[in-house]
Amino acid sequence: MPQVKLNCDLGESFGAYRMGRDKQVMPLIEMANIACGMHASDPVTLRNTVQLAVAHNIEIGAHPGYPDKEGFGRRAMALSGSEVEALVLYQIAALDGVCRTEGSQVSYVKPHGALYHAMMQEPEVRQAIFKAVSDYWSKPDLVVLASEQNQKLQEEANNYALTLRFEAFADRAYNEDGSLLSRAEKDAVHHEQAKVLAQAEQIATQGRVTSISGRTIELAASTLCVHGDNEVALEAVRAIKAMLQKRQDS
Amino acid sequence: MPQVKLNCDLGESFGAYRMGRDKQVMPLIEMANIACGMHASDPVTLRNTVQLAVAHNIEIGAHPGYPDKEGFGRRAMALSGSEVEALVLYQIAALDGVCRTEGSQVSYVKPHGALYHAMMQEPEVRQAIFKAVSDYWSKPDLVVLASEQNQKLQEEANNYALTLRFEAFADRAYNEDGSLLSRAEKDAVHHEQAKVLAQAEQIATQGRVTSISGRTIELAASTLCVHGDNEVALEAVRAIKAMLQKRQDS
Amino acid sequence: MPQVKLNCDLGESFGAYRMGRDKQVMPLIEMANIACGMHASDPVTLRNTVQLAVAHNIEIGAHPGYPDKEGFGRRAMALSGSEVEALVLYQIAALDGVCRTEGSQVSYVKPHGALYHAMMQEPEVRQAIFKAVSDYWSKPDLVVLASEQNQKLQEEANNYALTLRFEAFADRAYNEDGSLLSRAEKDAVHHEQAKVLAQAEQIATQGRVTSISGRTIELAASTLCVHGDNEVALEAVRAIKAMLQKRQDS
Amino acid sequence: MPQVKLNCDLGESFGAYRMGRDKQVMPLIEMANIACGMHASDPVTLRNTVQLAVAHNIEIGAHPGYPDKEGFGRRAMALSGSEVEALVLYQIAALDGVCRTEGSQVSYVKPHGALYHAMMQEPEVRQAIFKAVSDYWSKPDLVVLASEQNQKLQEEANNYALTLRFEAFADRAYNEDGSLLSRAEKDAVHHEQAKVLAQAEQIATQGRVTSISGRTIELAASTLCVHGDNEVALEAVRAIKAMLQKRQDS
Repeated sequence: MPQVKLNCDLGESFGAYRMGRDKQVMPLIEMANIACGMHASDPVTLRNTVQLAVAHNIEIGAHPGYPDKEGFGRRAMALSGSEVEALVLYQIAALDGVCRTEGSQVSYVKPHGALYHAMMQEPEVRQAIFKAVSDYWSKPDLVVLASEQNQKLQEEANNYALTLRFEAFADRAYNEDGSLLSRAEKDAVHHEQAKVLAQAEQIATQGRVTSISGRTIELAASTLCVHGDNEVALEAVRAIKAMLQKRQDS
Repeated sequence: MPQVKLNCDLGESFGAYRMGRDKQVMPLIEMANIACGMHASDPVTLRNTVQLAVAHNIEIGAHPGYPDKEGFGRRAMALSGSEVEALVLYQIAALDGVCRTEGSQVSYVKPHGALYHAMMQEPEVRQAIFKAVSDYWSKPDLVVLASEQNQKLQEEANNYALTLRFEAFADRAYNEDGSLLSRAEKDAVHHEQAKVLAQAEQIATQGRVTSISGRTIELAASTLCVHGDNEVALEAVRAIKAMLQKRQDS
Repeated sequence: MPQVKLNCDLGESFGAYRMGRDKQVMPLIEMANIACGMHASDPVTLRNTVQLAVAHNIEIGAHPGYPDKEGFGRRAMALSGSEVEALVLYQIAALDGVCRTEGSQVSYVKPHGALYHAMMQEPEVRQAIFKAVSDYWSKPDLVVLASEQNQKLQEEANNYALTLRFEAFADRAYNEDGSLLSRAEKDAVHHEQAKVLAQAEQIATQGRVTSISGRTIELAASTLCVHGDNEVALEAVRAIKAMLQKRQDS
Repeated sequence: MPQVKLNCDLGESFGAYRMGRDKQVMPLIEMANIACGMHASDPVTLRNTVQLAVAHNIEIGAHPGYPDKEGFGRRAMALSGSEVEALVLYQIAALDGVCRTEGSQVSYVKPHGALYHAMMQEPEVRQAIFKAVSDYWSKPDLVVLASEQNQKLQEEANNYALTLRFEAFADRAYNEDGSLLSRAEKDAVHHEQAKVLAQAEQIATQGRVTSISGRTIELAASTLCVHGDNEVALEAVRAIKAMLQKRQDS
């Protein structure tokens, strides 16, 4: 199996409101998903986050969300396909232009929160996102949830000449069907480091994860989503990174 | 004197709210200043406006404004230099990426409303805008108000390797010092077509405008700002266009 | 049957963006549903609209919507029950305090757009709205869609000591089950005045409406929703008003 | 001298973004200045904060700000007098209606950030705020900066039958003219607890404060503004409270 890369949502502060420990997590990851100003961020935060990623030579992805800062992009919104398409395109563009000004570029797109879930569950939203990302002139990749449907999704994406990257989660519980247990549910997020680390290792070395019901799900993932919201989360990231490094070295 | 080009603010609708007669005015102009989502517009409106400009093969400029839709970008906001810089950069980027996706690009920038006035009056804001526009990777031009200070402003811009375009207004009254009479004042905007046409002709053929106090102001302008808000404004644009065409043909 | 009152959504302009012909429609109606600043409006528009209603001595209702000006409150948003409750309460409060300052008060609440539809279709949203409106200290009524479920809904409302008012639509097509045909569908809105007038008369005199499939639906309505968006709509309102007046006089 | 009351800005979180330690600071103060949804807050945060204040039986004030969450209401905005008036009225109303629903009410108003500074420095803004607060139907008081101009301000306020409360700051440096040193300046905020405590004591017992230039300023203040942003700030509040208690007991 190839080395999995760590991706993390960054640049989600907004004006005077602080979110995440971007400076601490940036050196630990390979892919920075940067918020684009709709569910979070503002022009100053966005630019500073791009500069931070460039300083660490980290690959940059656009992290577009619904236009709902009050809900942090976590509340589903019934947008039409053309609204989703324009919304995603706008956010990729805003981030990419700032990246180019700083000597980098957007090389992939990972939708945020409720938009990500809608992409996985609603064909109309997914097609709109596939269209927006593949239309964008510099042709970034798209990150989707790894599952037993990877091949089916890639076939859909082929219609748009779109390259998918599949991601898995070390700190989220999985339903029997391979979807993530909703954050609204108890135990949706693993808080014990041992559990997070074990799930990360299972994904990275076996391409598998165990659902809450005990079923083994096959999910070939090239990237692992991690979080840098607080010191405990950062500790888990450091442990995962050490585990992956050890595995690569051996 | 070279032919002056007509520029017009477009794409200023917002969701269900309609503003301007973009479809009627687009065929009449040479430069489309497209709103970028802060003082007006939304991702769908922005993309539709870009597609309309591309369909008419019109040059596209970014029209960034303060983040204040409620005030339509007409209320001064005390932003720091770095806030202005990031704000302008973000908006250029968002529009430019959508333009590139549609086969065009942003070739100039014209700030909107209170941001435009701050650019002309406050050195800190002007330097931030000069920096943002010149930093942007594809090097667009910047539109500023034509006045007797053209040369001095261009010298400032040279420090940023920035090309300025100077614009004049056919339908706005000028103060003695060459600034625009504030919209808050009576008679700030000319409503009679004859007056608009006469001022357009004076600018286009003589490079001059007469202030409200009667002083003749020298202002070499390469572009004339027109408006497409209603049928009367459109009639004036058609008359200006005919006048310029006639002058060019002769 | 008692006289039906005309209600109309008003105060939906936003900053420089104009929506509706409030001055023309206000003298024609009995109930003004005033937008509260979330899906539309701003503090100046809200206050001006209240003053206009007070000048015409019209009963005022709060017209709360989802916090989505870009979508004009027409896009469903997945808010939790407590979010809906706080959202509705905030908007009633904002309008009511301005009304009291102008010598009036909010005497009823009518949710807007997607929030109205969610109220009719989702028990959790409905209960949150019932709770918010009945909690509000001055105890306004709540407007809901008249249907064959009127009695069942009033029983639900009784648990909150909440008085319902039932409204019908003269210019909207009805589904077989008594719900409104979605605006996304063709023929959702009647545009011919004769059809609007006939439906208004059927509602006002018979307490019935005919669905698109031809079924006769019993719907006792105390108020009829009308629109003042343009001259055609205003003409229809004038015709309905004349019809109701004639009926009352006879 | 009468006992000074402690006031603190609260309810400034926004959606998922946390700001301040409201639960810790609430039991320490007498007056809760609650954000109203423009520079900060959202309907859920606002309602929760009102409930917290009511649970502690704390007097509630409206804390209205400019409509600029991105700038946290700290950036001056050039609003017209009628815009300021409607803006302030709307925010008082929104909070007051929620308070009444929870069994309390808004008993005073304290503008936030740049709006507070504009109130102290610009007569047009001050008159608009005086008018809005005095117009509001339940007649709350208004908090202004205590200075040697107290009497002159109260005379202005008398034209509006408006009661002023004068506040001083224990943790802010004062200019020679009695205005606050701008936050943009170094040393604008006192960080050492001893200095904060000494200034609080000077204000509470002598009605005086010493400017950065060393001048003694007479400022009769009935309330002292404190902050609950972090543990250090909370420690200072506890120390001030103990000092005031000791003074009262003796």
